[in-house]
Amino acid sequence: MLLPYGVSYEDIGRLLISCPDRPGIVAAVSRFLFERGANIIHSDQHSTDPSGGTFFMRVVFQMAGLERRGEEIEREFLPLARSLQMDWRLAHAARTKRLAILVSRAEHALLELLWRRRSGDLGAEIALVIANHTSLAETAATWGIPFHHIPVEAGHKAEAEEEQLALLRTYEIDTVVLARYMQILTPRFVAQFANRIINIHHSFLPAFAGANPYAAAYERGVKLIGATAHYVTAELDAGPIIEQDVQRVDHRHTPADLLRLGRYLERVVLARAVEWHVEDRVLVYGNRAVVFS
Amino acid sequence: MLLPYGVSYEDIGRLLISCPDRPGIVAAVSRFLFERGANIIHSDQHSTDPSGGTFFMRVVFQMAGLERRGEEIEREFLPLARSLQMDWRLAHAARTKRLAILVSRAEHALLELLWRRRSGDLGAEIALVIANHTSLAETAATWGIPFHHIPVEAGHKAEAEEEQLALLRTYEIDTVVLARYMQILTPRFVAQFANRIINIHHSFLPAFAGANPYAAAYERGVKLIGATAHYVTAELDAGPIIEQDVQRVDHRHTPADLLRLGRYLERVVLARAVEWHVEDRVLVYGNRAVVFS
Amino acid sequence: MLLPYGVSYEDIGRLLISCPDRPGIVAAVSRFLFERGANIIHSDQHSTDPSGGTFFMRVVFQMAGLERRGEEIEREFLPLARSLQMDWRLAHAARTKRLAILVSRAEHALLELLWRRRSGDLGAEIALVIANHTSLAETAATWGIPFHHIPVEAGHKAEAEEEQLALLRTYEIDTVVLARYMQILTPRFVAQFANRIINIHHSFLPAFAGANPYAAAYERGVKLIGATAHYVTAELDAGPIIEQDVQRVDHRHTPADLLRLGRYLERVVLARAVEWHVEDRVLVYGNRAVVFS
Amino acid sequence: MLLPYGVSYEDIGRLLISCPDRPGIVAAVSRFLFERGANIIHSDQHSTDPSGGTFFMRVVFQMAGLERRGEEIEREFLPLARSLQMDWRLAHAARTKRLAILVSRAEHALLELLWRRRSGDLGAEIALVIANHTSLAETAATWGIPFHHIPVEAGHKAEAEEEQLALLRTYEIDTVVLARYMQILTPRFVAQFANRIINIHHSFLPAFAGANPYAAAYERGVKLIGATAHYVTAELDAGPIIEQDVQRVDHRHTPADLLRLGRYLERVVLARAVEWHVEDRVLVYGNRAVVFS
Repeated sequence: MLLPYGVSYEDIGRLLISCPDRPGIVAAVSRFLFERGANIIHSDQHSTDPSGGTFFMRVVFQMAGLERRGEEIEREFLPLARSLQMDWRLAHAARTKRLAILVSRAEHALLELLWRRRSGDLGAEIALVIANHTSLAETAATWGIPFHHIPVEAGHKAEAEEEQLALLRTYEIDTVVLARYMQILTPRFVAQFANRIINIHHSFLPAFAGANPYAAAYERGVKLIGATAHYVTAELDAGPIIEQDVQRVDHRHTPADLLRLGRYLERVVLARAVEWHVEDRVLVYGNRAVVFS
Repeated sequence: MLLPYGVSYEDIGRLLISCPDRPGIVAAVSRFLFERGANIIHSDQHSTDPSGGTFFMRVVFQMAGLERRGEEIEREFLPLARSLQMDWRLAHAARTKRLAILVSRAEHALLELLWRRRSGDLGAEIALVIANHTSLAETAATWGIPFHHIPVEAGHKAEAEEEQLALLRTYEIDTVVLARYMQILTPRFVAQFANRIINIHHSFLPAFAGANPYAAAYERGVKLIGATAHYVTAELDAGPIIEQDVQRVDHRHTPADLLRLGRYLERVVLARAVEWHVEDRVLVYGNRAVVFS
Repeated sequence: MLLPYGVSYEDIGRLLISCPDRPGIVAAVSRFLFERGANIIHSDQHSTDPSGGTFFMRVVFQMAGLERRGEEIEREFLPLARSLQMDWRLAHAARTKRLAILVSRAEHALLELLWRRRSGDLGAEIALVIANHTSLAETAATWGIPFHHIPVEAGHKAEAEEEQLALLRTYEIDTVVLARYMQILTPRFVAQFANRIINIHHSFLPAFAGANPYAAAYERGVKLIGATAHYVTAELDAGPIIEQDVQRVDHRHTPADLLRLGRYLERVVLARAVEWHVEDRVLVYGNRAVVFS
Repeated sequence: MLLPYGVSYEDIGRLLISCPDRPGIVAAVSRFLFERGANIIHSDQHSTDPSGGTFFMRVVFQMAGLERRGEEIEREFLPLARSLQMDWRLAHAARTKRLAILVSRAEHALLELLWRRRSGDLGAEIALVIANHTSLAETAATWGIPFHHIPVEAGHKAEAEEEQLALLRTYEIDTVVLARYMQILTPRFVAQFANRIINIHHSFLPAFAGANPYAAAYERGVKLIGATAHYVTAELDAGPIIEQDVQRVDHRHTPADLLRLGRYLERVVLARAVEWHVEDRVLVYGNRAVVFS
């Protein structure tokens, strides 16, 4: 009864669940999967409190014919999901997410994502680059990615966003990545991609939210600079944090040095967050992000 | 059917399993527990390869009356365990492990363990300190821990070990911690505490095994020094690694500085390894240690 | 003309300088020392901007008879110091600084300092522990440090501070360390120890200033918790930062876990800051601290 | 006498010195520079032992007309250098070093260097890429760098190296970077670029020297993987270490994962080492590298 060789990527599913905690959830879910011939490859769960808390679970399983049987499985799962008051989704590993990268002039974060995509480390399609400047047109061209220049002029953001949203529909985009995109999105835009817009902020949030965080960090004399990748919400720099990291600096670093060093931090922190998102490792709960490792 | 308030520590069990991987293990184990009224608080598993690899699992669960029902549960688990060819053990969280700390003259690693015990971060009983020198007698006394001085003289190691083993029996010791104990244990001693002797080696193994690792690190001009906590096996410094960490150094550090800085690394790395061990987070597999986080 | 063996600690001086930058400062200072028979063991300098910026310098030198000749050297240095508009001080390595540690109930930060003192890593005298609770009286006693209990009652802070200041005078204290002392000092107290009071704040400042930073960090869902050691100024948690560090956390950590984990961060960050301070490695410049490594 | 605005890069010199330690070296060198109108921007020195040890110094200074006056300054420095038995060199910041990058098939390390060059963080000219495979021809072309394919066939390494050396001469190469170049250079090649060939080894040396370090690291069950950038010497993987770093791994990582994760480490460690080398921050001393920060 060992698994046959040649397991197909098409057969890998990822089930994400959050619900009120109570005994028996793991047993019920694993039994449901087992009875349908699924093999659990990895499973992780967490409870904020076994007595009345919230339960989170991510199960990666293999199931022959998942691609074909997906809808049926979802239908069959419904009664269990309802009885346990689950928020849940079933993702197919083979349905690679399609990303749009929004940029301004800075290259580093975009380049890192392109590179990780080519090297096979980022399991997503980079379908589209949208920029409010033209500086990165050639970079996108070199990597063979469609590039659209949509300037965002004062007082005309609504029109620009309309154009952006139309493109996102045309390219069937799942997730929007703000790779040092120096514009604030309107709540209207954000609402259409709830928990599907990832931004990289160049500070250790909540410290130094808003503009010019490196200048503020220098002014305050911090000994570590940071970067934060988070989902975008209506409130600026306040959405659920997916990943953060820091780097040591000292008195010899000028604000320009912090900006320069920070780029290396930003590209890594953003790339990790995007990878985790496209692998369905992130569950948003209130204003916090649960990241299954 | 939500859990009642006032869950008791006596009711917490930890089930550790390794076996050949095949579909349905998670389902079978979680069902077994559910049917006996257990609630899974945390569960982690891993497979080296879903096709013919080895499967590892750690389940933390709550079960009313576990202390009383433990043996019965184990008996009932046997058929399942056998059918899946499991190596397994069921640990009771409430049965705190009893540690003996073996030391020579250096204080730091011992003191860290004593302190973590007092602060409640180390969930074990420090039942006994055995030393081949007398320098730490007062430290042990201050913290109220029995201290036994057993000198290890050239040519008389066997006698010393006999005395040590007798003490370990008297104090009903589960786990031996070598907290910078500057003696090599004989294979005979080691065999009696397989995967239950934890040593801290002052290098990033396998670099600089053996004596004087800091001098060797200095000589080689490394830019990071390390420390490694591992289970002791018959072969010197070659047992399963539980934890490692490093610290940056530069050309200004003398060998004496490395030794001094290394102490802070050693105490932390050893303490983490001991904590994970006593929380039944470590599974040895071949010469490798799986640490469930 | 090589240095004789047996250099004495009494002969080691540390010269700290800040002044407007201009050519020739290093040459003038090193010549001054050389002409008086000093040997520069280590020197570090930094300029915020060679054109019109601020210049910082720390020189460690050896000079036979420094203890005896110190005042004369300082007098001779004055003309040079004036001509270059220097802020400067000459510290004798052998004049060990005397610390008072202020604590409340938490033990970890105090214990770390006591231990580093005993192990020889903290080059200062821990002359006095002052506490607004009695819980740590025994710890202080065990380590042989005078312990004074001065309760701080609502509406009577001024009296308590008077008593504290009197003790600091009696014990000839150079530097006050707030080792998780849960009281805010008045500006009047702070003014008497400008840049000589070191506090450990349990967050990555400027994030989560004020009370309950771990609860706030949990609420915000950060992926790293931090600790910050800084000089105390009149404005709460806003003084020059000496050292910061962080530790990774995830969704499995409760606020209580953050508090527990944070202790290990706090003790290390505070200890580093105190060590650097007593080795005269820290120069305050505006609201920023230059730390010479 | 403050420095005029508009300091030119052409006027920046870097003086590197190692010699037997004795009193007065700093004074003599800073006076020499001051008397010739130089302004010391940054200076760092270190002594292995003030009594009979080795003294190292790196001085960055600004001197009007350095480009023109360089040879004269060097001539004038000779008597002082001789009297203090100095090994020394004077580098002109404006004389950008010319690099040849040797690669096989892996892209990451090369791409990182190209990118840092374009972003202005790597102060060197990437003059040439030499590869023993053709896979990276297009990458080099995209970035506008001359690419030469020199296959290295069994038994014909000497001829291949002749061809490589001829190219290095033609392109006036200062420094050779082995960016995951999967060939061992002969001692004959190495001798021609002593301390000017930088290799990235994919382990924390001296652990796992030689081939397949990630497989060996997996086998040993280490908890951190590493990368080491070092100067190439006649002995394989044994040259002076310039930089090392590590990354945490756990039991879930397969050997393939280590290889994949390791790439991110390798690119960063190599890039740092190359940056420090081209900024004349590295002094080799015996088999150790002093890196001035």
